[in-house]
Amino acid sequence: MVDSVEQAVSYVRDNDTQFRKDVASWCAIPSVSLEAAPNAQVQSAAEWGAERLKKAGFTNIALLPTAGHPAVYGESLTAGPGKPTVLAYGHYDVQPADDRTNWQSPPFEPSVRAEHLYARGASDMKGQVVAVIAAAEAYLKTSRALPVNLKLIIEGEEEIASRNFGEMLQRERERLACDYCLNTDAGMLSPSLPTIKYGLRGGVLARLTVSGPRTELHSGHFGGTIGNPIHALCSLVAGLHDDGGKVTLPGFYDRVLEITDSERRQLALLPTDEGHFLRVTGVPALFGEPGFTPNERTCARPTVEVTKIEIPGAGGVAAIPPQASAFLLMRLVPAQDPEECYQSLLEYLESRTEPAVRVEATYIDGGPATLVDRTHPGIRAMHRALEASWGVAPLYTREGGSIIAVSLLEEHLGAVSVLTGFGLPDDNIHGVNERLHLPTWRKGIEALIRFFHEAGISYP
Amino acid sequence: MVDSVEQAVSYVRDNDTQFRKDVASWCAIPSVSLEAAPNAQVQSAAEWGAERLKKAGFTNIALLPTAGHPAVYGESLTAGPGKPTVLAYGHYDVQPADDRTNWQSPPFEPSVRAEHLYARGASDMKGQVVAVIAAAEAYLKTSRALPVNLKLIIEGEEEIASRNFGEMLQRERERLACDYCLNTDAGMLSPSLPTIKYGLRGGVLARLTVSGPRTELHSGHFGGTIGNPIHALCSLVAGLHDDGGKVTLPGFYDRVLEITDSERRQLALLPTDEGHFLRVTGVPALFGEPGFTPNERTCARPTVEVTKIEIPGAGGVAAIPPQASAFLLMRLVPAQDPEECYQSLLEYLESRTEPAVRVEATYIDGGPATLVDRTHPGIRAMHRALEASWGVAPLYTREGGSIIAVSLLEEHLGAVSVLTGFGLPDDNIHGVNERLHLPTWRKGIEALIRFFHEAGISYP
Repeated sequence: MVDSVEQAVSYVRDNDTQFRKDVASWCAIPSVSLEAAPNAQVQSAAEWGAERLKKAGFTNIALLPTAGHPAVYGESLTAGPGKPTVLAYGHYDVQPADDRTNWQSPPFEPSVRAEHLYARGASDMKGQVVAVIAAAEAYLKTSRALPVNLKLIIEGEEEIASRNFGEMLQRERERLACDYCLNTDAGMLSPSLPTIKYGLRGGVLARLTVSGPRTELHSGHFGGTIGNPIHALCSLVAGLHDDGGKVTLPGFYDRVLEITDSERRQLALLPTDEGHFLRVTGVPALFGEPGFTPNERTCARPTVEVTKIEIPGAGGVAAIPPQASAFLLMRLVPAQDPEECYQSLLEYLESRTEPAVRVEATYIDGGPATLVDRTHPGIRAMHRALEASWGVAPLYTREGGSIIAVSLLEEHLGAVSVLTGFGLPDDNIHGVNERLHLPTWRKGIEALIRFFHEAGISYP
Repeated sequence: MVDSVEQAVSYVRDNDTQFRKDVASWCAIPSVSLEAAPNAQVQSAAEWGAERLKKAGFTNIALLPTAGHPAVYGESLTAGPGKPTVLAYGHYDVQPADDRTNWQSPPFEPSVRAEHLYARGASDMKGQVVAVIAAAEAYLKTSRALPVNLKLIIEGEEEIASRNFGEMLQRERERLACDYCLNTDAGMLSPSLPTIKYGLRGGVLARLTVSGPRTELHSGHFGGTIGNPIHALCSLVAGLHDDGGKVTLPGFYDRVLEITDSERRQLALLPTDEGHFLRVTGVPALFGEPGFTPNERTCARPTVEVTKIEIPGAGGVAAIPPQASAFLLMRLVPAQDPEECYQSLLEYLESRTEPAVRVEATYIDGGPATLVDRTHPGIRAMHRALEASWGVAPLYTREGGSIIAVSLLEEHLGAVSVLTGFGLPDDNIHGVNERLHLPTWRKGIEALIRFFHEAGISYP
């Protein structure tokens, strides 16, 4: 092992208690971003972060204001111009923890039991951010420099859809300029399976509204003689997929980047087989596009899901409503274009016009999928670091959802993200008794030390 | 005109102001049955009714208790055993009037403006009940006897689905025994078009639930690999009708009593043509079973309408819900059987089983349609009475909805109802500025005087 790495690893082992206390202290501040601003607790967690970066040896520390909660910034650029600049992303805001009765210890009174630290935000993601800070501090306190130029941006609004993050990135794009990003918010598949995510699905959120009568109508007086908006909406929703589960929107699959054989082999290594999906979901049988495994379907194939139906009115069971709406969420893969996919939806609706009702669609939000080349130097560096720490090669997976911050970093800074993390599937993030598995977290800190080292070496 | 009728008509003309004041006094008591019991105002309106019956000359007056609000009873049986016994039905409870800001005068401070008396309950139906009382009083004060044996039952829970009425009818079936019922809660089509309703659709209310995953699932992580309960529900709903609007449930139309040519001709006389339905509803085009007019479709053809969709969960737009339910309201016609029609639904569901989801149906409520022979002596008597008062033959219509009290009276007393009334389509019953058109109401009282006379004469 290289000296500087060895020293840094020793440092984090010697200071393990302090880093664990750091996680606990930060988690004791209930920085729930969902609550209406101004929120003194969120501000206080931001200040805690800034203070901690200072102690670690970061420079140019600042709270970058947004229209909502500020982001914490710090940097250590002593590696110099020959070395890559990595922007490590994190967030210090947390989910609410309203269901207090089911927490074994209060969510904002961190408590260590056996191998876990229990607290809201411990895994998602104050613990993950402390891991990055610890790995950086280890170099700064032992070698006085990091192997890469490191910038750290810790936002305060991830749990509320990073709503002001893009605007801030645009404004601060010089300060935040980097070669690529590191994002430790993506977790791993099990304590023994380090994981790299190299792709995210994109999406289009649209609303479909079918309008019929001017107001609610008595279903006895009018039933049978006017088009019921609920029926018309259901018919449109039912037609979105064929019997096998393939999306019927015209041209929807035209640009889909097909899965390569090498990817298929890699996805087949994931432990999330059919049995896994059945167990986790409790469904009687799986369903989906024929010819693809569940992993392929959720990671690399596009889908359309209706996630909500809204029917205005008094809520009785005797009236035909004036309207019925559906929220329709497309999950897109490379190289589908969100605008084009929305156009496909419009074409579909056009082809099914019914004279008795009016149909309207609204584009609410959308963004393309991302896919990072698995030979990207950041991914290569992470691969070596994880393999060295765990003794096994990491698994490669693509995420079926989107991560807004990742899209925004790509959009505003032109920087892809290396996605990994040391959170586990049973950490109950967003749920009761959220926890951080300390042995995995410790291994994660060492992996990050190795990552900085590997990232600082130029590969051919 | 027969002497006794002439005297009674004179009496109501002389006492017009008093009867109008009666409507106003009764409407000033806010007997909103929807509010939680005990409700002193509802009780007070019941007592007002009992007092008024006494003043009119009714005997054996009583408040018949129920598990909820009492019903008011009174009788005048001096016509003797050779004459029919008519049970006049009414209700003294009213809808809430919460939207006070849009009332031109307060809902419970009756106000006469031009030809209308404005108040909650004026048309629905305290004014209608006062009309019956006035017609009866006119005989009792002038001829000391009515041409028929008259019983009056005025319930206090019509606006809350007559929830305790059936139980009371069953208990009081001897006291309430009658040849047929008179129900003046059914209105007329316009001030110049007196109307008799001779049929009501029946119904089945069922709930359809599609279950998939155990809990809400992230649509990014699981979308494309499990069956979405919303999609499956929409597909079931979409399949309930063919493209033309005919119900697809197996055997659903098997027992339907076809419309006779004479009925078709009569329904064609109604002013509610296609233009009417388009104007009233605001829909771009009508829709429904081919080969039938809108009137025929709403009165005499069965339908299935989904009136509500319920999706449990946090209400976000990113999750696939564990369940999706639809409330399905069948409107049945003679001689469909509610149980059989529900079985048709089960067969339909069975035929469309999908392995990826579970489908459950629940029978919530149901009852058969009713159809009274248009040659029934009560209908004949009402026809003559309305024709004499308005100078035109009444229109005959069937109602597309159900009237719970009518079904209960048929079930527990074996008595059909002669349905008419002097409420108008623009009385805004249940809405703001409910009103009673006084000239129509006065004509209605005279028609009731004639009805009692006609009903007392035996027709061959």
